[in-house]
Amino acid sequence: MTGHLSAKPPILVILAFLTLGSVLTMYPPAAAAASVDGVLKLMPVPASVTVRDGRFRVDENLTIVPPYTGDPKGVVTSRAFKAAARFMSRLAGRTGLFLKQDFLTAQTPSVEGGIRYAYARPGALLPNEDESYALTVAPDKIALDAKTDIGVLRGLETLLQLLSADETGYYFPCVDIADKPRFTWRGLLIDVGRHFHPVDVIKRNLDAMAAVKMNVFHWHLTEDQGFRVESKVFPKLHQLGSDGMFYTQAQIRDVIGYAAERGIRVMPEFDIPGHSTSWFVAYPEFSSAPGSYGIERKFGVFGPAFNPSDERIYPFFDAFLKEMSALFPDPYLHIGGDEVEGHQWEANPAIQAFKKKNGLADNGALQAYFNKRLLKILTKYGKKMVGWDEVFQPGLPNDIVIHSWRGPKALVEAALKGYQGILSNGYYIDLCQPAEAHYLNDPLPPDSPLDDRQKALILGGEATMWSELVTPETIDSRIWPRTAAIAERLWSPASVTNVDDMYRRLGFVSVELEELGLLHLKNPDMLLRRLAGDPRIEPLKVLAEAVEPLKNYQRHGQAAYTSLSPFTRFVDACAPESLAARAFRKNIDQFLAGKDPKLGRKIGATLALWKANHVLVLPLIAASPALREIEPLSLGLARACEVGLEALDRLMKGQIQPAAWAEEKGKILAEAAKPAAHAELAVLSAVTKLVEASAGPAK
Amino acid sequence: MTGHLSAKPPILVILAFLTLGSVLTMYPPAAAAASVDGVLKLMPVPASVTVRDGRFRVDENLTIVPPYTGDPKGVVTSRAFKAAARFMSRLAGRTGLFLKQDFLTAQTPSVEGGIRYAYARPGALLPNEDESYALTVAPDKIALDAKTDIGVLRGLETLLQLLSADETGYYFPCVDIADKPRFTWRGLLIDVGRHFHPVDVIKRNLDAMAAVKMNVFHWHLTEDQGFRVESKVFPKLHQLGSDGMFYTQAQIRDVIGYAAERGIRVMPEFDIPGHSTSWFVAYPEFSSAPGSYGIERKFGVFGPAFNPSDERIYPFFDAFLKEMSALFPDPYLHIGGDEVEGHQWEANPAIQAFKKKNGLADNGALQAYFNKRLLKILTKYGKKMVGWDEVFQPGLPNDIVIHSWRGPKALVEAALKGYQGILSNGYYIDLCQPAEAHYLNDPLPPDSPLDDRQKALILGGEATMWSELVTPETIDSRIWPRTAAIAERLWSPASVTNVDDMYRRLGFVSVELEELGLLHLKNPDMLLRRLAGDPRIEPLKVLAEAVEPLKNYQRHGQAAYTSLSPFTRFVDACAPESLAARAFRKNIDQFLAGKDPKLGRKIGATLALWKANHVLVLPLIAASPALREIEPLSLGLARACEVGLEALDRLMKGQIQPAAWAEEKGKILAEAAKPAAHAELAVLSAVTKLVEASAGPAK
Repeated sequence: MTGHLSAKPPILVILAFLTLGSVLTMYPPAAAAASVDGVLKLMPVPASVTVRDGRFRVDENLTIVPPYTGDPKGVVTSRAFKAAARFMSRLAGRTGLFLKQDFLTAQTPSVEGGIRYAYARPGALLPNEDESYALTVAPDKIALDAKTDIGVLRGLETLLQLLSADETGYYFPCVDIADKPRFTWRGLLIDVGRHFHPVDVIKRNLDAMAAVKMNVFHWHLTEDQGFRVESKVFPKLHQLGSDGMFYTQAQIRDVIGYAAERGIRVMPEFDIPGHSTSWFVAYPEFSSAPGSYGIERKFGVFGPAFNPSDERIYPFFDAFLKEMSALFPDPYLHIGGDEVEGHQWEANPAIQAFKKKNGLADNGALQAYFNKRLLKILTKYGKKMVGWDEVFQPGLPNDIVIHSWRGPKALVEAALKGYQGILSNGYYIDLCQPAEAHYLNDPLPPDSPLDDRQKALILGGEATMWSELVTPETIDSRIWPRTAAIAERLWSPASVTNVDDMYRRLGFVSVELEELGLLHLKNPDMLLRRLAGDPRIEPLKVLAEAVEPLKNYQRHGQAAYTSLSPFTRFVDACAPESLAARAFRKNIDQFLAGKDPKLGRKIGATLALWKANHVLVLPLIAASPALREIEPLSLGLARACEVGLEALDRLMKGQIQPAAWAEEKGKILAEAAKPAAHAELAVLSAVTKLVEASAGPAK
Repeated sequence: MTGHLSAKPPILVILAFLTLGSVLTMYPPAAAAASVDGVLKLMPVPASVTVRDGRFRVDENLTIVPPYTGDPKGVVTSRAFKAAARFMSRLAGRTGLFLKQDFLTAQTPSVEGGIRYAYARPGALLPNEDESYALTVAPDKIALDAKTDIGVLRGLETLLQLLSADETGYYFPCVDIADKPRFTWRGLLIDVGRHFHPVDVIKRNLDAMAAVKMNVFHWHLTEDQGFRVESKVFPKLHQLGSDGMFYTQAQIRDVIGYAAERGIRVMPEFDIPGHSTSWFVAYPEFSSAPGSYGIERKFGVFGPAFNPSDERIYPFFDAFLKEMSALFPDPYLHIGGDEVEGHQWEANPAIQAFKKKNGLADNGALQAYFNKRLLKILTKYGKKMVGWDEVFQPGLPNDIVIHSWRGPKALVEAALKGYQGILSNGYYIDLCQPAEAHYLNDPLPPDSPLDDRQKALILGGEATMWSELVTPETIDSRIWPRTAAIAERLWSPASVTNVDDMYRRLGFVSVELEELGLLHLKNPDMLLRRLAGDPRIEPLKVLAEAVEPLKNYQRHGQAAYTSLSPFTRFVDACAPESLAARAFRKNIDQFLAGKDPKLGRKIGATLALWKANHVLVLPLIAASPALREIEPLSLGLARACEVGLEALDRLMKGQIQPAAWAEEKGKILAEAAKPAAHAELAVLSAVTKLVEASAGPAK
């Protein structure tokens, strides 16, 4: 190529670097493959894995052979066969192989080889059901054996994750796997009250749950902001309380069936007596204060609560819970019970009189009274009661299940008194915390004070997707892939705690989940295109990699969000945890430990790219008013990276900076650390380390 | 920054260039803004637009005010109000504005300003219904007036497309628009027989149709490969003929309601007497040859056909069409009628005897006999018959509608004989042709031999999404954005034919469609991630930009595709029309016309990037057997670009090459032009032009 063709205007070079940066920073070098986990991509890690020599070749002749029952139709319509058909379809999708087996309908005649599965009986959708399986991959055949068909489902997911490739083609490595879950209750809660999430959102998340062996879908169906289930007995509830956004009973049954096909229980929650404004749009008379009610648009803890002293509410709940008990086959029904704000109760003289008359010392006792009445109704309809921490009050029988949002301490207290419990504290995925934080949160930590009998009362845990700030467009990226880390915590042995290896496998799982229709990797780009009004979003992607949403509930302090607000901002396109930022921080730690110049140059390139990105973000901001809020973030990143480059340069030259220099640079970093656009830079701690190291004593 | 920090290994530089290339080549300089169309982003272009000075500012105080009817609930549940609520939600999504109006439920009290709409009556979902509207944007208010609420829906889409931004914020430019469609039948056919497409696929495509003012969803519900609608009268049809992949009647009603809310008719098609293998799985006795039948897995024209000589089929169709006529409210019902293969009829002695006895000269006459019997049934149930070209046979009354897949000539013939017609020839979007080809295909070209009365018989056209090669994952990218060009052909005045401006606006529409959930821009990356088993897909994206799927039906010759094959290959991630390749070809034409050195350098950079991409594709291919088929494409692109660089260099230096040189290079290009991976390079014609120009006489 001749010289004049290679002349490039500077803007192109900058753009090139930037886009390059987005590639480089996202993928740290693979973690050292010291263990089986370091080689395989299984998530959750099985209870026991032995890798053997040999490979089972996957080609178009692959068949999956169900156990012959004598009734061909029985096989084809069985849950395991349908899962096997989905397995084959996903396998074909990944490999591009034109499998010869007509896996949708045909029971392939008995042939040698292929994948054979067997199970003793259909599994029940109940806690403590057997989900174990044994999977043996030999060079010429694969055997999957389980006590129940649910075990077969779990094993098929493991087999799919074993798919590997070499120069010859695709294969499964030869392994012996014996697997079973550590906890029997591995749940995901989706709050469809604060934002409605249509059936397709639920279904794709059920598919994702099944892929990581989760087995309880906790459907949080009612909230101040919406009553989301059709009631044929009290149709005004959904007609007036949902803005038309509710599930019909046919849809509910469809979802339950879809979940059951994947070995997932569906537990409904009707959150009472608080969090219930939407009920009172139809039935203001059941609330504890007079007045008409509208669907709540704001977020928070609100006053409206059912009036436990009003005898009329109990026949109402009897009829309603009778209807819902028939609609939802799961033996557990969650009555919420959290965060009764209390003012309505305190301001109501009839309620005060009722408390006095019945010796109910406080609102907790009043709520316990309410719960006891509800428990009677639920028991009549064959349901076990589950409730949040607050339902744990003296006087309740210990066949209720305590669902802890407050913390492990509350769970231990309940277990000590003989109550079963589920942990959600530490699994609040709406807080935008890193996967690591959830991963290391164990429902039964090594230092647990419980004895074995009490430990058995800890059923497991649930990730909770509270939906104040998520819509159907963004919910997948808030749930996945981080929830896969929680799934592993609840399935895998307690000893599986290698965080770096978890992140390595999380990347693969994330890509795998896409084949099930999950939008967590796709939608951020879409949101950026909408904001820019243009497909040219590269500089925004570069910035988004260095940014994370404000953690915990800080974002609510930034704007008066309501259920009608747009959740289409830049922050909504930022992942709750930036893997690029994590990789950058790891690189800095590694560099500071060893001062490897090659790594130093790599870090320098990343800093240079992020710094230069700002000039490219500016025209996009100018063209799009909705993007103007990100200017401080982009500028802050550029300035912090300039500081980082300076510190890195001195470090690589072995020059020590005076303390005043570090102080001055610290001010710039502090300025950059201020939240903007409801988000914050996720790379500043690492730059700070560079600055501090360069101001320290030479090594 | 100091020198050692800027040192970069060559691989990084190459990667940078490549990713840069993908940015640069996709977006040609905007077309000259010579007309109103060159400024606005409206698609389809309205019948009349006048742009005035002034801007209506969009801020959080914006309200949309329905006409007051005296019945607040009537307003809130009206089709226009629901469309207005969706409008506000999309507007909030684009702008990030926290609109103060509670647009879901509240009828805002009469205030000055804002958007006011009015209409005289609810529109009927019938051909020739009034869809006109008048839209006036003034600096202080917006008025949208229409004869029907359907006109309001159309006008709201136009208003949303008017959204603009300047340094102050968002605004609507002041305009006067008077708009109405040129054709009354603007349809999209989706074939759910060859591949099933679940309700969510249908719904998001209905939303996209509404966004570009299309009004007929043609639901091709039965095929050899699947019977997709629940029949309660003959449940074996869907139970045995669908692999469990069918729409329940509740889902059908849901979709019809969803379409109606968007001003879209739903016309069902039951394709008979051919294309009917799936019916015979349940009812082999109605076919024209003995034997049991299985659901067809392959694609093509197959033998099985109903037996018109068997009197038993008519009561069957009577009962079936009675049921379907009640399920689908549209007055039109499509009976298919295409491609009766004929062998079953010819091999059946009873049919031959029947033909002789009834004086039916050939299979066409036999089919006409069948159609007449069907017509009687349909008429009884209040339906008008629509059928493909083949139903146009002597003896049929002229209140049937001819749907032309064969060509405009057939349509003209029918119109000359007084039949109404719809054009689909030229709108076969499954052929992977460029938008331009469809755009310039006019149902009523200027040279039409029809008189005005006959012209009125041409109702419009339909884009046809035949689904042999598309799945729910890929269908959106096969339909959109190209179908928006067809929508414009059918809505806008015949004089709107500026192809470059169409492409300019197509890019904006494409991004807008994403807000409705369309996956055409998102899923290609997902497919590449799945193929690579990794999120690092940049080199694959670069290659995909230079590649298009094989056109027409050539792809079927590359592999024995079936309905169970994976459609997850590289080719499935390539857009039917690469806008990057189009831009490259336009650049080459422009360069050859003027030899602008700046443009030459830009072309050179693109060629260099594409050439260098090959070494980056190779490791991805090595890691993924499913990608190995793309090596010839990648290598061919690299070699062609090397040739192009050489030719460009000589051209820029003004050197003429000998004819032998051009011949030698032509061989390389011919080699690169060979299909591979079911795809082909889309940039070779442009490179060939470079070679030819550099071998020609100096200018």
